[in-house]
Amino acid sequence: MSALKRWLPSVPLLDWGRQYNRETFANDAVAALIVTLMLIPQSLAYALLAGLPPEVGLYASVAPLLLYAVLGSSRVLAVGPVAVVSLMTAAAVSEHAVTGSHAYWQVAITLAFLSGSMLLLMGLLRLGFLANFLSHPVISGFISASGLLIALSQMKTIMGVTADGHHFFDLLLALMNQASHLHLLTLVVGIVATAFLFWVRKGLQPLLISAGLKPKLAEVLAKAGPVVAIALTTVLAWRLDWQGQGMKLVGTVPQGLPPLTAPLWDLSLWQELLLPALLISVVGFVESVSVGQTLAAKRRQRIEPDQELVALGASNLSAAFTGGFPVTGGFARSVVNFDAGAVTPAAGVFTAAGITLASLFLTPALYYLPQATLAATIIVAVLSLVDFEILLSTWHFSKLDFTAVFTTLLATLLMGVESGLVTGVSVSLALFLFRASRPHIASVGLVPGTEYFRNVLRHDVLVSPKLVCLRVDASMFFANARGIEDRINAEIATRPDVEHVLLQCSAVNDMDASALKSLEAISSRLKDANVFLHFSEIKGPVMDKLQKTRFLEHLHGQVFLTNYQAIEALTPEIIQNN
Amino acid sequence: MSALKRWLPSVPLLDWGRQYNRETFANDAVAALIVTLMLIPQSLAYALLAGLPPEVGLYASVAPLLLYAVLGSSRVLAVGPVAVVSLMTAAAVSEHAVTGSHAYWQVAITLAFLSGSMLLLMGLLRLGFLANFLSHPVISGFISASGLLIALSQMKTIMGVTADGHHFFDLLLALMNQASHLHLLTLVVGIVATAFLFWVRKGLQPLLISAGLKPKLAEVLAKAGPVVAIALTTVLAWRLDWQGQGMKLVGTVPQGLPPLTAPLWDLSLWQELLLPALLISVVGFVESVSVGQTLAAKRRQRIEPDQELVALGASNLSAAFTGGFPVTGGFARSVVNFDAGAVTPAAGVFTAAGITLASLFLTPALYYLPQATLAATIIVAVLSLVDFEILLSTWHFSKLDFTAVFTTLLATLLMGVESGLVTGVSVSLALFLFRASRPHIASVGLVPGTEYFRNVLRHDVLVSPKLVCLRVDASMFFANARGIEDRINAEIATRPDVEHVLLQCSAVNDMDASALKSLEAISSRLKDANVFLHFSEIKGPVMDKLQKTRFLEHLHGQVFLTNYQAIEALTPEIIQNN
Repeated sequence: MSALKRWLPSVPLLDWGRQYNRETFANDAVAALIVTLMLIPQSLAYALLAGLPPEVGLYASVAPLLLYAVLGSSRVLAVGPVAVVSLMTAAAVSEHAVTGSHAYWQVAITLAFLSGSMLLLMGLLRLGFLANFLSHPVISGFISASGLLIALSQMKTIMGVTADGHHFFDLLLALMNQASHLHLLTLVVGIVATAFLFWVRKGLQPLLISAGLKPKLAEVLAKAGPVVAIALTTVLAWRLDWQGQGMKLVGTVPQGLPPLTAPLWDLSLWQELLLPALLISVVGFVESVSVGQTLAAKRRQRIEPDQELVALGASNLSAAFTGGFPVTGGFARSVVNFDAGAVTPAAGVFTAAGITLASLFLTPALYYLPQATLAATIIVAVLSLVDFEILLSTWHFSKLDFTAVFTTLLATLLMGVESGLVTGVSVSLALFLFRASRPHIASVGLVPGTEYFRNVLRHDVLVSPKLVCLRVDASMFFANARGIEDRINAEIATRPDVEHVLLQCSAVNDMDASALKSLEAISSRLKDANVFLHFSEIKGPVMDKLQKTRFLEHLHGQVFLTNYQAIEALTPEIIQNN
Repeated sequence: MSALKRWLPSVPLLDWGRQYNRETFANDAVAALIVTLMLIPQSLAYALLAGLPPEVGLYASVAPLLLYAVLGSSRVLAVGPVAVVSLMTAAAVSEHAVTGSHAYWQVAITLAFLSGSMLLLMGLLRLGFLANFLSHPVISGFISASGLLIALSQMKTIMGVTADGHHFFDLLLALMNQASHLHLLTLVVGIVATAFLFWVRKGLQPLLISAGLKPKLAEVLAKAGPVVAIALTTVLAWRLDWQGQGMKLVGTVPQGLPPLTAPLWDLSLWQELLLPALLISVVGFVESVSVGQTLAAKRRQRIEPDQELVALGASNLSAAFTGGFPVTGGFARSVVNFDAGAVTPAAGVFTAAGITLASLFLTPALYYLPQATLAATIIVAVLSLVDFEILLSTWHFSKLDFTAVFTTLLATLLMGVESGLVTGVSVSLALFLFRASRPHIASVGLVPGTEYFRNVLRHDVLVSPKLVCLRVDASMFFANARGIEDRINAEIATRPDVEHVLLQCSAVNDMDASALKSLEAISSRLKDANVFLHFSEIKGPVMDKLQKTRFLEHLHGQVFLTNYQAIEALTPEIIQNN
């Protein structure tokens, strides 16, 4: 039973649902109202960014929120369309259908289905560790580049032109070609809206506080700033007939509940969407978990990564069956939800109800909303993702990490999101192997008058020409096994008097089959060269593993408990001189 | 100047060439004669295995030997066509041209060119560490599966039928379908030749020794066994007119020097050959270096992996310009070269001269050589590559390594060499991340009456409810950074009284930017939860890195030299009770 339970996803709803009361209800309801106001424009905007009709953004913000509320391990994460995942959706779907077509929407639904299935499977199989492939340098380079790409792609809406391109310079070139066709009124509205939203981010909260509001309330209200911009420009567009003057508005958004939909059952399409779906899943998961963990820690709560995979998987599957597109936990909305006082996932249920009401009754009011205003909200949101300081800080911390950030950033800008991410992951794995292939191996000697051993390069220590004593400062595994072999070969080739090689293993935490094979090769080569191979200070877990093999039986040498005992036995003369 | 020299490949010829004398000449010449006798049938056989005319095997055994003699760092490695690389060549080239056509040969030449360019580039850029991607489990699973595939593919020649397929079961099915068409005489000759060659491997050497030969000489002569089988069946085929009875012979092999050729300059072909060329390069390099290192160690010589890349790269480029196909250092022929007494790479030059003479004058004699005899020599050679014991030994040593061997073996058999190898590498990287994502982290306490700390699960130690003291037994990097975060989050979420978290870093050899980011996240979350984060026993190199960042400035806690000092400061009460 408990074995079965271990493999079934848990249902966190059963924990917090039992303790639900009037006070938690009130807190959750207030938070839900504020998040709903924030989510409506965001959902529309991110749907447009993904190349989909705006109402699809609303659809993607209902069922996923409900599913996450039941299955998610974070109390406050708000799931729905987010900027980077929407960009990745656009990049993947536009390979297979024409933007704006019905087929495009169906491919997006299929992508959500595949991504949801993968997340669910990864969760059930406890494969959350796969997200580790995305090292921090890769994810931050990727997110910054995506932010730039998104901001640039929104410039066309603000300029009131059409321009296409999935790479930074394509897009820039296309925009410059269109510069002569720009629509002045749209540009003015776009720039004013952007400036207003930047001011709201920085300047509104202090203003509200000085007007007598409590800082916490002022913070939350300031986050609702986009709603003001949207209401204002919508009313102006209506009263001043901006459409008649050639401005692009959101237009007719169909009223109604999210529709029932199904993915395309097309195996060859699935095959081609496999890689983008995997990348979207992993990026979405990493983003979502890091937001969830940050917020959970503030209340000493805990996120279960494998449970999150299950919840995000179910959310994306539900998106696929209700006309949505790939979703994940969003940073800004989750923070607003938390700050506005949400205490349980019920807030998500109420938000879903709010969005449903909006898509039933509010959509006619969205007719006059200028697309440029939505573009402005996206630009302001994504520019906060762009973090060039990471280049500076990794440069100081480690050149290899800097290389990973820089390569990912550049590759994403130049080659688009998919190739950029794959390049980043490959480069970061290659750099890891490079770093690991040069393990720190110190040639050590005895500190006179003690039983301690230190690096011969840094300390004045006792050594013997008969003995090579090396301390391997790393676990031994495939990435560094050949490096260790090379080092020992080099020592033997350059020191003809050597009779003993002694490996001090005090820092070897683990060992794999490649390392064992290397040790076997080293051992038999040393035997051929008439040199003994000894070990000292092997840790318990490593010794357990070695004893399952015949390596120690065949060893042309001994195993010593301490390095000092080894020296006593092998080169007593240096101790006598001591 | 020395900086420039570091980047230029060295020319080992300049070292050994100066000391060359009459005695080394005699040794090298004898070894060359024996290796030439062995190489002629092998070259023909591996060319046929690669889907090429037999003379191409001879071409591939001249220029590469010369180039390696000048640039290689091994004194005795013999470069030329080898079984696994020939199989990989067949798999790659047959995607782009019809076996037996002129275009097929040109694609093979292009593959040698690309592979040679990559090896040379990797050598000049010191990228030898990339070979670490092939862990020992992956390479041994791959080689075993390749051995089985090659042996099975030769069965068609021994049965005297035609059957195609790049996967094990395709091929098996095709063979079974052809069973009714088998050519009885060919089968008998094939089986007898195979049995004879197996006997030569095991039984000839003892027989020669008991006949009074010196063991060393007997060993070398036994290695020349295939020559006997070839001479005998050639004479029989000629005298008994086996061709008239429907047996396939080698037929006309054009006489002459290796031709001057050039790769196809076709970028789209290059793009498609990029992955196979990379895989061939890396597999060839790994095989070659491991043979070279084993032999070099016996004479306390040394192999320079980056120099080997340059030498193998130049060898493959020379193959491309002289009508050859991808080559690398072969195991059997290098061992024979070594055992027969070769002392310098001049033996390789003499062997190249021998092969040149053979292709000028010996080819008419090869007309009557039965293809089944060549197939028998291949089968006997490759079955020694198949090592199922590795499955057993890795099963005992580590289930993760076993999984890597097994997956690679199965994937190669079922999906062919390229997909098999890529799958193997991916799985072994994923398993590595899995292993690394669960670092050993011990919760430690003070051993009463000492200043030592031990795992609370294994020892009776002093702890405080206010303090979580964790010893991280691994370097901190992207693969385990989230695992460490999760563990600390879990401790804090389940122990509400905790005021201090103390990380004992005595086993942390290194740290990357992902780990730093995780520590920053942990630190700020703990601060939000009003918990201090302290460190103890940080190693020098890690401390150097941390001091380049602002992490320690912003730390809500302290850094202690020893864990005991930390306990004295944070929870003195457990020491007073001591």
